[in-house]
Amino acid sequence: MEHGLTVEDLRGRIEEIFLRAGTNAVQAAALSRVIVAGERDGCKSHGIYRIEGVLRTLRAGKADGTAIPELDPCTGSAILRVNARGGFSTPAFELGLPALAERARELGLAALVVNDCSHFSALWPEVEAVTDHGLAALVMCPSYATVVPTGGTSPLLGTNPFAFGWPRRDAPPYVFDFATSVAARGEIELHRRAGKPLPEGWAIDAAGRPTTDPEAALAGAMLPFGGHKGSAIGTMIELLAGIMIGDLTSPEVLDFLGATTLSPMHGELILALSPEKFAAGRKGDPFARAETLFEAIQGQGARLPSQRRFAARQKALAEGIVLTGAELAQLDRWHDLGLDAIA
Amino acid sequence: MEHGLTVEDLRGRIEEIFLRAGTNAVQAAALSRVIVAGERDGCKSHGIYRIEGVLRTLRAGKADGTAIPELDPCTGSAILRVNARGGFSTPAFELGLPALAERARELGLAALVVNDCSHFSALWPEVEAVTDHGLAALVMCPSYATVVPTGGTSPLLGTNPFAFGWPRRDAPPYVFDFATSVAARGEIELHRRAGKPLPEGWAIDAAGRPTTDPEAALAGAMLPFGGHKGSAIGTMIELLAGIMIGDLTSPEVLDFLGATTLSPMHGELILALSPEKFAAGRKGDPFARAETLFEAIQGQGARLPSQRRFAARQKALAEGIVLTGAELAQLDRWHDLGLDAIA
Repeated sequence: MEHGLTVEDLRGRIEEIFLRAGTNAVQAAALSRVIVAGERDGCKSHGIYRIEGVLRTLRAGKADGTAIPELDPCTGSAILRVNARGGFSTPAFELGLPALAERARELGLAALVVNDCSHFSALWPEVEAVTDHGLAALVMCPSYATVVPTGGTSPLLGTNPFAFGWPRRDAPPYVFDFATSVAARGEIELHRRAGKPLPEGWAIDAAGRPTTDPEAALAGAMLPFGGHKGSAIGTMIELLAGIMIGDLTSPEVLDFLGATTLSPMHGELILALSPEKFAAGRKGDPFARAETLFEAIQGQGARLPSQRRFAARQKALAEGIVLTGAELAQLDRWHDLGLDAIA
Repeated sequence: MEHGLTVEDLRGRIEEIFLRAGTNAVQAAALSRVIVAGERDGCKSHGIYRIEGVLRTLRAGKADGTAIPELDPCTGSAILRVNARGGFSTPAFELGLPALAERARELGLAALVVNDCSHFSALWPEVEAVTDHGLAALVMCPSYATVVPTGGTSPLLGTNPFAFGWPRRDAPPYVFDFATSVAARGEIELHRRAGKPLPEGWAIDAAGRPTTDPEAALAGAMLPFGGHKGSAIGTMIELLAGIMIGDLTSPEVLDFLGATTLSPMHGELILALSPEKFAAGRKGDPFARAETLFEAIQGQGARLPSQRRFAARQKALAEGIVLTGAELAQLDRWHDLGLDAIA
């Protein structure tokens, strides 16, 4: 049995769940926007499935649903800072975005630092929010220690996502957003549930030996993508989006949480770059030139990232979001029970 | 037969070669500094071997050895710009570095754009020059089209290096600098000369099929590292360090050069970030916290990048740089014949 909902209807239902669970309006609104965006784009792993994680994190006292984020505009600097005050990253990002865009347009380049936030969302919603301002975006954050540095034996780095966006005039932006581990932790969990072995090269066991057993992998560590290169990028993210911004690294996050079932508390680094400022005085329009590059990529049968997501979005906007009866029942359960829905 | 030379002796000999070949003092000095750094660090692929490429590029008229780079400080912006005016990237970078460091210390974050430069050097010398100012660095540039985007059939992206550095107080910096292709083009050439097949996953042939034949790979294309993730990063570098800064993309570079034996002409993007500014007002000293991370990496037997290079440097500084008789004879030949040494 299937039911189509408008994006706004579903967003409102999600918002209501969080409000009834005790979050304030700022948190509930931003949380509902990012979760409905995941569901709309067919990213089930970042859709309504995440509601439970948010409730669990609130119930564990590892995020503050009543926090009001605070913006420090750091006038005269290329850095802006939002303190999420222990709330979720999304309202903090939304608060900082207009100031970030203005600063990047003024200086050509600016950074938004989000500190002390509980973070579960994909990075592409933030990347796209920056590209909506005609700016390129580079976004990264730590996670919690589940990835082994290449050559090592135990988890230290996070899955540390790395995301980038380039604004396009007549198309959704060029966007990528990926974990710097070979696979996401959820993919290993899916193999475990299905009783399927992992592909080679995904993980090591607790003794540091390569394994294809999902159970052993979950007790061990995941491998970085691309060997030592991905390991280096993951380390860079710990340095820039953890240590440099004065926030927790992935091992520190795990210490703070004591579990990988809760939303990690850390910081986030968002860089915004103005193609107009960078290209000023040079030949050619950067947006037109980028289209030539995209055509050359697609012209040889290669794909631009995020196209499946944009297709799902188009369908959802036209036809509504289709949830199963079980999913709708789960929404009702969260709505009625709030934090008590969590075991 | 081996001969040890001091770094300064070898640098002087390299400088003399370029001066006699008709370059001006600015170009010769900066070229000699970057080439001797490669030789000193045991990076033979970026050492004196590169002299021939510089001479060949000058002889082909694809770089201007008499160029004087020009700095546009773009006051009131987080972007500084140096136009290399068709000369090499290294003197342009050296001209822009002090202003970049000052701007990054002032604003927390700044970008140096180098335009219209002939570029053959590794990125780590520039990364290290930024970290010497107590700043973190992110450096990238295109190359010429030799890498296929994942899912495609023909070369479009460059090997597009991506480099990062973090300053350390009592040790050489944390530095990585790698091609976003699986392998460097030189490694495929080495396999060809040795008559050895390539590892699986390095390359495709001209028809777009996977190949382990080095000849077929050189006629085809190299693959990005890490599958679609490396392909996305390579594309990002075309966008940010080619199109955004108003300079050539890798396919455009290949059109301009007409050959892959010459030093590519394009631009370069250098970001400098001030850990002190980013961490201001937050708990913990970022440099001390980074050491904890590095200890955790090394403590489990994983290596930090660039350690082999730093060990070679220490040896070279203590014992001199050892060149073979053939290498010394080649230096003499370049010295005596200049551009006429090029076939």
